[in-house]
Amino acid sequence: MRILLVNPNTTETMTDKAAFAACAVAASGTAIIAATSRMGPVSIEGHYDGALAIPGLLSELKERAGEYDAAIIACFDDTGLDAARSFADVPVLGLCESAVATAGFLAQRFTVVTTLERSRVLIDNLVRRYGMGGRAKVRASDIPVLQLEDPASGAIGKLRAEIERALAEDGAEAIVLGCSGMTDLARELQDIYGVPVVDGVAAAVKQAEALVSLGLSTSKRGSYASPLAKPFTGAMSVFAPMRAAG
Amino acid sequence: MRILLVNPNTTETMTDKAAFAACAVAASGTAIIAATSRMGPVSIEGHYDGALAIPGLLSELKERAGEYDAAIIACFDDTGLDAARSFADVPVLGLCESAVATAGFLAQRFTVVTTLERSRVLIDNLVRRYGMGGRAKVRASDIPVLQLEDPASGAIGKLRAEIERALAEDGAEAIVLGCSGMTDLARELQDIYGVPVVDGVAAAVKQAEALVSLGLSTSKRGSYASPLAKPFTGAMSVFAPMRAAG
Amino acid sequence: MRILLVNPNTTETMTDKAAFAACAVAASGTAIIAATSRMGPVSIEGHYDGALAIPGLLSELKERAGEYDAAIIACFDDTGLDAARSFADVPVLGLCESAVATAGFLAQRFTVVTTLERSRVLIDNLVRRYGMGGRAKVRASDIPVLQLEDPASGAIGKLRAEIERALAEDGAEAIVLGCSGMTDLARELQDIYGVPVVDGVAAAVKQAEALVSLGLSTSKRGSYASPLAKPFTGAMSVFAPMRAAG
Amino acid sequence: MRILLVNPNTTETMTDKAAFAACAVAASGTAIIAATSRMGPVSIEGHYDGALAIPGLLSELKERAGEYDAAIIACFDDTGLDAARSFADVPVLGLCESAVATAGFLAQRFTVVTTLERSRVLIDNLVRRYGMGGRAKVRASDIPVLQLEDPASGAIGKLRAEIERALAEDGAEAIVLGCSGMTDLARELQDIYGVPVVDGVAAAVKQAEALVSLGLSTSKRGSYASPLAKPFTGAMSVFAPMRAAG
Amino acid sequence: MRILLVNPNTTETMTDKAAFAACAVAASGTAIIAATSRMGPVSIEGHYDGALAIPGLLSELKERAGEYDAAIIACFDDTGLDAARSFADVPVLGLCESAVATAGFLAQRFTVVTTLERSRVLIDNLVRRYGMGGRAKVRASDIPVLQLEDPASGAIGKLRAEIERALAEDGAEAIVLGCSGMTDLARELQDIYGVPVVDGVAAAVKQAEALVSLGLSTSKRGSYASPLAKPFTGAMSVFAPMRAAG
Amino acid sequence: MRILLVNPNTTETMTDKAAFAACAVAASGTAIIAATSRMGPVSIEGHYDGALAIPGLLSELKERAGEYDAAIIACFDDTGLDAARSFADVPVLGLCESAVATAGFLAQRFTVVTTLERSRVLIDNLVRRYGMGGRAKVRASDIPVLQLEDPASGAIGKLRAEIERALAEDGAEAIVLGCSGMTDLARELQDIYGVPVVDGVAAAVKQAEALVSLGLSTSKRGSYASPLAKPFTGAMSVFAPMRAAG
Repeated sequence: MRILLVNPNTTETMTDKAAFAACAVAASGTAIIAATSRMGPVSIEGHYDGALAIPGLLSELKERAGEYDAAIIACFDDTGLDAARSFADVPVLGLCESAVATAGFLAQRFTVVTTLERSRVLIDNLVRRYGMGGRAKVRASDIPVLQLEDPASGAIGKLRAEIERALAEDGAEAIVLGCSGMTDLARELQDIYGVPVVDGVAAAVKQAEALVSLGLSTSKRGSYASPLAKPFTGAMSVFAPMRAAG
Repeated sequence: MRILLVNPNTTETMTDKAAFAACAVAASGTAIIAATSRMGPVSIEGHYDGALAIPGLLSELKERAGEYDAAIIACFDDTGLDAARSFADVPVLGLCESAVATAGFLAQRFTVVTTLERSRVLIDNLVRRYGMGGRAKVRASDIPVLQLEDPASGAIGKLRAEIERALAEDGAEAIVLGCSGMTDLARELQDIYGVPVVDGVAAAVKQAEALVSLGLSTSKRGSYASPLAKPFTGAMSVFAPMRAAG
Repeated sequence: MRILLVNPNTTETMTDKAAFAACAVAASGTAIIAATSRMGPVSIEGHYDGALAIPGLLSELKERAGEYDAAIIACFDDTGLDAARSFADVPVLGLCESAVATAGFLAQRFTVVTTLERSRVLIDNLVRRYGMGGRAKVRASDIPVLQLEDPASGAIGKLRAEIERALAEDGAEAIVLGCSGMTDLARELQDIYGVPVVDGVAAAVKQAEALVSLGLSTSKRGSYASPLAKPFTGAMSVFAPMRAAG
Repeated sequence: MRILLVNPNTTETMTDKAAFAACAVAASGTAIIAATSRMGPVSIEGHYDGALAIPGLLSELKERAGEYDAAIIACFDDTGLDAARSFADVPVLGLCESAVATAGFLAQRFTVVTTLERSRVLIDNLVRRYGMGGRAKVRASDIPVLQLEDPASGAIGKLRAEIERALAEDGAEAIVLGCSGMTDLARELQDIYGVPVVDGVAAAVKQAEALVSLGLSTSKRGSYASPLAKPFTGAMSVFAPMRAAG
Repeated sequence: MRILLVNPNTTETMTDKAAFAACAVAASGTAIIAATSRMGPVSIEGHYDGALAIPGLLSELKERAGEYDAAIIACFDDTGLDAARSFADVPVLGLCESAVATAGFLAQRFTVVTTLERSRVLIDNLVRRYGMGGRAKVRASDIPVLQLEDPASGAIGKLRAEIERALAEDGAEAIVLGCSGMTDLARELQDIYGVPVVDGVAAAVKQAEALVSLGLSTSKRGSYASPLAKPFTGAMSVFAPMRAAG
Repeated sequence: MRILLVNPNTTETMTDKAAFAACAVAASGTAIIAATSRMGPVSIEGHYDGALAIPGLLSELKERAGEYDAAIIACFDDTGLDAARSFADVPVLGLCESAVATAGFLAQRFTVVTTLERSRVLIDNLVRRYGMGGRAKVRASDIPVLQLEDPASGAIGKLRAEIERALAEDGAEAIVLGCSGMTDLARELQDIYGVPVVDGVAAAVKQAEALVSLGLSTSKRGSYASPLAKPFTGAMSVFAPMRAAG
């Protein structure tokens, strides 16, 4: 089974970290194909960055079509997830959706700890849409995304402080790490705090493997129907769907 | 007051129709500046089209920055609304959000009638997020968007049949037209059915005028904070934010 | 366009303040007709006051019928709004509904700051009914309504302290002032705190202008159908509907 | 124990019917004191009638203060319930709230069948506020309230037809009769349909008895705090609260 | 009227306390029949204890069938309530459901104070299912259930501290005692804090009396249909239903 | 990895069918250990059957403790799931929870088709608690569970008819089979209807594998804390927890 992991921001070190985490949990027959977006923001912090990361994400999905059995969008904002599901003929997983569904099997109440305040409401909206609004809180720890790449930034201390507040104030029974750049910290934090700590990259790999092995893929009836054939103009013309809708 | 109305699809006849509707309701001191996206799909039908319409939308907002006091995104899917609000220093309105807020002043229960089934759940998700999920239903009338430009298509008959079902089965007290291509039909349908019929283009113009005249604009605290200065790469590099976050 | 602004309490200085605020934002062709209820409580603090303010409110609407194109109920509790909508042939706006709809265009999360604790849950119930329960919190600042008329009361200090708590603890991206007596403070507070501060009087004027100019009025199908002709007895006999239901 | 049952409309035959139903279920030590409003509409159909029934209701509560241990508002719209609870020092029960709470002990899903379409959304809003929105549907049977007083009106046939639709289409496990004028039909309908049929008058009597015998009364902390002493003007001056707030 | 009060844990002192509380509020014609489960945990703290208390509970209901007109499950977790309702031909009441419904007549917002953190989410889930999730918070006071039987345990001090937090931080207008072992404290706490304090045992007695006197019982249509006749094996064979489903 | 699949009803042919389905999707290193409850109902149809199936379920989990790395409860009602999670030191999965989480990755709106009406509301309550209430409907197809074991029963025809109604009336984009006895039909139905058809047994196997391979297990902080050591009496004494709580 081939899983395409696309980092929708353009920072390769983040792709590498996510791919490493994905490989670490992949089943023996699973190949992780890592791809970094070639156009868009170097990190995704808020709605503007996220919207402009989607063409780069879809471009990777499109150019490698036929080369993968499932895809993962390696950003906790689930950037472009609906568009990718409409486009692809194979299952597509987001980190947030995978992580909160996974946490739901482990705990009745949990907290997502993300980076910046500007991402907090965005993720809270996702959590509600995925049905976990009554069970999960979202907290920001005031860490710019790329600081997670820098051990000297103090980012981990801020993250730990926020996890401790979640445990003390939210009644959190588990923690979800709300940024793909935190993927390498999950095990250690789980050991420290003695509660399940869910990483979205790992969760998404397992959900992708599950769907492929069950022969399940995105419904093409209704809201994720394949794009209708139609012209796209200008710089976006390369994205014009070439086939009829399913 | 200058309101920039951007059609995020690239079909100029749809821009013209929306601009005509906007001008028809604009206050005497309001100038409507119509713009058509120069890159992306010729119509927005579903998540894939919508995501790829956003760069074209943002491009219009960006190039005309300083030339408008508020902006309207002339698509009922509220394509790119969050990104546009983060980007702009002036209020930005979507058709769906404006229309359902307006309908909420007129009726306790109402129905949105849109085009294709693939857009129905997308709009239903918006309606829920805007807080009207308990008051509004969304129906699709099986009309491809561009058929609304063709009087011979039978589209109006399908739309009327769906409105009649909404009145008979949903207990609808008002109707919201769920596509910018229906903007020219609102008055006539209101006369026929004797219930308020809300058009998103007109509603958005009024909300834009309201916000500007009240000196209110998008909060830059929290989820709509201005994009952080950072590099964007490849074909998206033109979108890199150049200023510091607010 | 003539907008009737009815203060449902009987304190004329509050009417004057609200009328001043309304005139300050009214479009050039809009005339604000201010009316003060002639029967009922001198201020509306809680359910009992509110219920007994409704006859006075409806009396103003009734006696001036035909003289206005829209009406505003100048109390943040939206006192009698449903009854007024059923009665009137023209649009009727409440301050709370107008303000929270307006805030929804500016911020994803916001806080309403009202006067007394006894009004907090009442307004919270309104906010939920209007669909903003997931996006807005309501706080009381322990200010009796009429203290807002007295500069020496310390009321503004209490209000500011509560706004500061909302910003620090709620993640509020905008503030809604939850009493018509606060209408004169909006601009100043917006300047101080750097977030949108929405005043219900101003918001309602703009929504009234919007509906009238769009040719939209309350649906007479369903829950806001015109009152059925029937006798009313005793002191209420003057309110008996004289026409057939719509 | 003395329970004051106030009919907030001015039709004495409806009071008589409700009082008869109340007496039929009252415990041996319970006295039912029936009162008919002396000012307001002859029946309550929609928001306008309801709002103008409140002074007459409160007047009965006020004039008989000290003569009753609990009060029931004998209208399924729970007209003036919040105001009455704020006013009274004893428990106050509404029919809708009592009936749906009672039905909740009997069935996981149920349907309320009321009279006119104009009352349907009003009651649906109550049902949601009381927390039963996810468990109960509300249906209208197109019966003007006073037709329930006329055996030749065909009203019962319409009511039965609507109950049958509720059983067939809603998965209703129980039925709530959504008008005080239906109180005499509950037993017979329960026998016919073999599901619990809950009448609001009877349910409210039992809840009133329960609260009084448990020594429980409306909280005077927060939203139902006693009205603050203040002037009321004009025709409403008689309602001015004379005591300090609790 | 005979009400069977079954304590689903096997500690007779807790049965005695609950029976005493039940008798104290029972109407003159009501006989309280107290029963203690003869198999299962000595106290119910969390999901595991609760599930294993159900056979003992059902056994009591089954062996005394025909000897009671209604039943109460004397545990605030509403242990086995759905199963008991399916089994019994008479009304069955839980403490949590009865208490929160009762509190709903007294206050718009209230707080349930229970024992251990492990019961908090369990009760919160019940509160949501009963429709009070938007009106009630649940707090744990860190008291093992059986400490409530020991005056020297300091349990009451912990309980009072938690009630004080609820009043100060939650805006609670009333308090619900979230354990049957607290039943003897309700009156005293109500006197101390001046807000309604609702005890589940007392509330359930009144609801049971109400349903029986109204001739209402659990619907046997739909989810509470009588168990279908079928074999049960092993140690559970005694529970096999012997009659056809209703 | 060893996954214990416990059928909580006592019908071995159903265990066999579920085990066969589990083995068919298990990864190469996964061993499925099938167990049939030795005490309780031969099928689980409604709340009463379900509650009395829990001791048999827990007994299997308890006796085989240490022999498995994860457990699956092979009944779509998620019978005893909370108790099992509290008891076990390893992940425990239910069919309903696994299936609806899986369907959520494939479709925005879907329908669960179960057997009898008496199970419909029970499952609907689960679906809501798992957060899918806004996205999923539940339908009953009027099939007694054990008829699914009998090819001549006509059960499959009824199931197909209900699926067809779901597609036509609910806007379902995917189907979830709401009974473990339907597990063998998933592939065929998916081929017939061209939408994803999710079987709970298969979904649960994959979720179990995912959690084990990720090193995640049920949180022991909060609501799923290990049972406290305490006596259990009578026939349940064997279930007394022997260790201290986590």
